[in-house]
Amino acid sequence: MLTYTFTNIGSDSLYEHLYKCIKNDILQGKLGVGERLPSKRPFAKNLGISVITVENAYEQLISEGYIYSIPKRGFYVSDLKKDTLPSQTSQASNIVLPASTPSYIADFSSNQTDSQIFPFTVWAKTMREILNENQEQLMINPPCGGILELRKSIADYLKEFRGMTVRPEQIIIGAGTEYLYSILIQLLGNNIIYGLENPGYPKLAKIYKSLHVPYSFINIDDNGISAEALEEKKISVIHISPSHHFPTGIVMPISRRYELLGWAAKEPGRYIIEDDYDSELRLSGKPIPTLQSIDVSDHVIYINTFTKTLSSTVRIGYMVLPEVLTQKYYEAFSFYSCTVSNFEQYALAKFMANGNFEKHINRLRNYYQIKRDAILTTFKNGPLKNYITITEEESGVHFLMHIKTTRSEADLILAARAKGIKLAPLSDYYDSFDNEELRNTYVMNYSSIDINKLDKVAEALYQIVK
Amino acid sequence: MLTYTFTNIGSDSLYEHLYKCIKNDILQGKLGVGERLPSKRPFAKNLGISVITVENAYEQLISEGYIYSIPKRGFYVSDLKKDTLPSQTSQASNIVLPASTPSYIADFSSNQTDSQIFPFTVWAKTMREILNENQEQLMINPPCGGILELRKSIADYLKEFRGMTVRPEQIIIGAGTEYLYSILIQLLGNNIIYGLENPGYPKLAKIYKSLHVPYSFINIDDNGISAEALEEKKISVIHISPSHHFPTGIVMPISRRYELLGWAAKEPGRYIIEDDYDSELRLSGKPIPTLQSIDVSDHVIYINTFTKTLSSTVRIGYMVLPEVLTQKYYEAFSFYSCTVSNFEQYALAKFMANGNFEKHINRLRNYYQIKRDAILTTFKNGPLKNYITITEEESGVHFLMHIKTTRSEADLILAARAKGIKLAPLSDYYDSFDNEELRNTYVMNYSSIDINKLDKVAEALYQIVK
Repeated sequence: MLTYTFTNIGSDSLYEHLYKCIKNDILQGKLGVGERLPSKRPFAKNLGISVITVENAYEQLISEGYIYSIPKRGFYVSDLKKDTLPSQTSQASNIVLPASTPSYIADFSSNQTDSQIFPFTVWAKTMREILNENQEQLMINPPCGGILELRKSIADYLKEFRGMTVRPEQIIIGAGTEYLYSILIQLLGNNIIYGLENPGYPKLAKIYKSLHVPYSFINIDDNGISAEALEEKKISVIHISPSHHFPTGIVMPISRRYELLGWAAKEPGRYIIEDDYDSELRLSGKPIPTLQSIDVSDHVIYINTFTKTLSSTVRIGYMVLPEVLTQKYYEAFSFYSCTVSNFEQYALAKFMANGNFEKHINRLRNYYQIKRDAILTTFKNGPLKNYITITEEESGVHFLMHIKTTRSEADLILAARAKGIKLAPLSDYYDSFDNEELRNTYVMNYSSIDINKLDKVAEALYQIVK
Repeated sequence: MLTYTFTNIGSDSLYEHLYKCIKNDILQGKLGVGERLPSKRPFAKNLGISVITVENAYEQLISEGYIYSIPKRGFYVSDLKKDTLPSQTSQASNIVLPASTPSYIADFSSNQTDSQIFPFTVWAKTMREILNENQEQLMINPPCGGILELRKSIADYLKEFRGMTVRPEQIIIGAGTEYLYSILIQLLGNNIIYGLENPGYPKLAKIYKSLHVPYSFINIDDNGISAEALEEKKISVIHISPSHHFPTGIVMPISRRYELLGWAAKEPGRYIIEDDYDSELRLSGKPIPTLQSIDVSDHVIYINTFTKTLSSTVRIGYMVLPEVLTQKYYEAFSFYSCTVSNFEQYALAKFMANGNFEKHINRLRNYYQIKRDAILTTFKNGPLKNYITITEEESGVHFLMHIKTTRSEADLILAARAKGIKLAPLSDYYDSFDNEELRNTYVMNYSSIDINKLDKVAEALYQIVK
C-alpha cells in the first residue's frame, strides 16, 4: 500500500500534505495511469490518520482532475495527457486480489499477532548479533532439514516443555505447516486416504485437494476422533490436534489417545499427525502429554509452528518425524533446499537458546490472559450478557461464543461486518454442517483484538442481536 | 555429519588433526556420551580425506579411551566419567544424516555466496529500520503472493533491467524456486507432460518425480531446445533458461525464441517456464531480451530468485504469471499463506527501492569478474594450461572446463577430492550421457572459490592430470 510519512509537514494540514504527496507521485509517474488508489479505510489505517483526512485529500484530487472515482470500485489515477476519463479500465485491472488487510474494528477471524506484544527490541538485537557474528555461517547452505542449531534449540524446548525426547535430526524445519504438509504427502504417498477432523482446520482439505490426495472427513465426538471411525473410513493418516482441538477446544482424554495409538500401531503405514498448534498458550491447568511422547511404536508425526508464539508473519514451522520416516526423508528428499532463510533460522535459534523465547511465551500467556479476561468481562457484564454463552476459554487464543438471537447466522455476520466486526461462524469449520443447535456459534480468535475498542464492539454486537 | 576444516593444521598430519578435533568435541561435550561417530567411509568422503586417515584417528581415540567400537555397529563416544563402556547404545542413533557442509579448499559444485561480498552492513541497517518503522505492517498477514511493496520493487526492477512490463499482482513471491515449482504444478495440472532440458538442472526432475508429475527430457542442440522436439514428445510445459543455459551456457538466439513462442501459442495449455536464474551477472555483452518481454500471447512464466544476487541462503524467489494464470492463481490458491517471512520481504523491498540492490549487483558483477579473471589467469598461465580448455566464461558464476587426461572422469573426481577439490562433471547434468567427447568436462561454479587458494588448487589439479 502507498505509504507517506507525516513528519515535517510544515504548516500543511494532514489532508493537504496527503493530497500533495499523491499529486506529486502522479506527476512523477510513480502512480501510473489507471492505477487504483488504496481504499479509504485501509489507507487511513495504514497511514495512522482518520478516514475523513483521506476522503478530503481524495476529493481535492478529484476536483483537480488527478484522480477519478468509479462507484463501488474505487479511485483511479487519471490520464492527465488525455484529460478525459478512460472509457474503461484496462482488462488487467479486472483481477481482483484477495483482500489482504481488510479494516475492522475487531476481526475475530484473524490469527494475527498484535504488534504490541512482538518482542521487537530483543528480536532486533538478536538479528543484529547474528548479522555481526555469524556472517560465514549465514552464507552456508543449511541441511535440507534446517540448521542444526535451531533444531537443537527446538529439541531442548520440546524436552523441557512437552516432555518429548527427540533428536535434532528428527526435526525438519520448513516455511510454515502448509509447506511441511506438502513434504509429508510426498513422504507418505498419495494413494492412501488422509483423514481430517470434522469440524477442523478448513485449509487442510484445500491443501489435500490441490495436491490431488484422497481424503475423508471424520466426525468428532465429545472426545475427538475415534479409532472406530478411522477403521470404517479406511484412513491411513489422520490429522488431529489432541491437546486443544481446533476449533471446538476439546482436549482428548488419555484413554482416547491410547485408543488412537493402538489404531496406528496395528498397521505399518498408519500415522497420526499431531498438530500441537497452540499448546504453549495454555492459560490454566496442567499441560497434557503429547501423543508423540507416549507413543512407543513410532507412528506419530508431531507438527508445530511459531505462528502463535512469535507471529503468523514469521514463516517457521517444524515437524518431528518418527525414526523410519526420518530415514526415508533423508534418503528421498534431501535434495530439497530448506525453505526458511538462514538469517531467521539463526536468529530464532539464538532467541531460543538464550532463554528469550521462554520469557516471551510467559509474557504472551500473561498478555493473552489479560486480553481474554477483558473480553469476557466486557461481554459478560454488559447488556450483551443475556444473549451469549461462552465456552472453551482456558487455552490458546480463541474461545467459542454462542449468540442467542432470532437472526439467521448469515444475516448476523453481515450485520456485524457492517459495524466493522468480523465474526467466524463455527459452521464454516465443518465439511457439511447439519447441527442447527450450533448455528450462531462463533470461533472468537482474540489475538489481534484491541481491548480499547471492546466497549464499542460489545455495544455494536448488542445492537445487532437485541 | 561432523565436519572439520583442514586449513591451518600447522605441522599436524591429517589424522592427528582429525583426532584432536574429535577429542576436543568430546571433551567440550559437543559430542555426547553414547553418540555414534560417522562411519569411516562417508566421513572420509565428507571431509575429502582418505578412509585410512579416519581409521588412524579413530584408532588413536579408541586407544586413549575417548571412543569405543561395537563390531558391525560403529564407533561411539565413551562415558569418560564412568570409565566403562555402556552396555548398549540407543537404537535411535542409527540414522545417518546427509553431509551438509563438507570441507574443501575449493568446491566448484557449490552455489554458495562468499560472505565477503554479502552486503551485511546495509542489510543490517535495512533490517533495523524495518524493525523500527514497520512494526504494525510486519504483523499483518501478507497477501498469498507476497507483500505488495516487494512485488512493486521487483516490477520496477524488471522494467528497468529486463525491459519487462509487469504488474505487481502478476508477481508471486515464494520461498525459493523449488517451492514455486510445486505451486506451478498445482496451477498447471499433473496430467500433462513437463519437458526438461537435457542437459539441465538435475533437481527439477527430482521435484517432478517426487510430485508424481509426468516429465520428459528434451535434448538440446547448439541453440537450445527446439519446437520440433517439443511436438514430438507431446510436451505441454517446458522449462528453459534461454538467457544463459545451465550448465552449457548457451544463449538462445532470437529466431529460436520466436520458434518456441510460436510453439506455445499454438495450443492453449502450453507454457514456457523461463528461468532467468543468473541474468543479472552477465559480465560482458548486451543483455538479451527475455522471452517474457517479447511474448504477446501470454504463454510465458518468468521465474527468478535472489540466490545468485544476494545469497542462496536467503530463500526468496518469484515468478511472473501470465494474466490467465494470475487470475486462476488467485481464485484457486489464495488460501496458501505466503512462505516468505514479512521481515525479509519488507527488508528486501526497501533494499531494492532505495537503490541498494542495484548498487550491490554492480559490486557483485565486478567482484565476480575479478574472481573469474583470477581463476582464468592462474589456470591458463600455469602448467595446467596444456591440459585444459575453458568455454562459456562470459556470464553468470560458472564456466566449463574440459580436462585433457588419460584418467577416467570418476578417477579424476576422486583424485581431486582427495586433494580437497570438488569437481562437478558436466555428465551429471545429463539424463543419460553418451557423448564421450564431453567426458572430463566440468561445470566450474566459482562463486564460493577463495582466490587466495588458487595457486594451490591449480597445482593440485596439475599434479592429478599431468
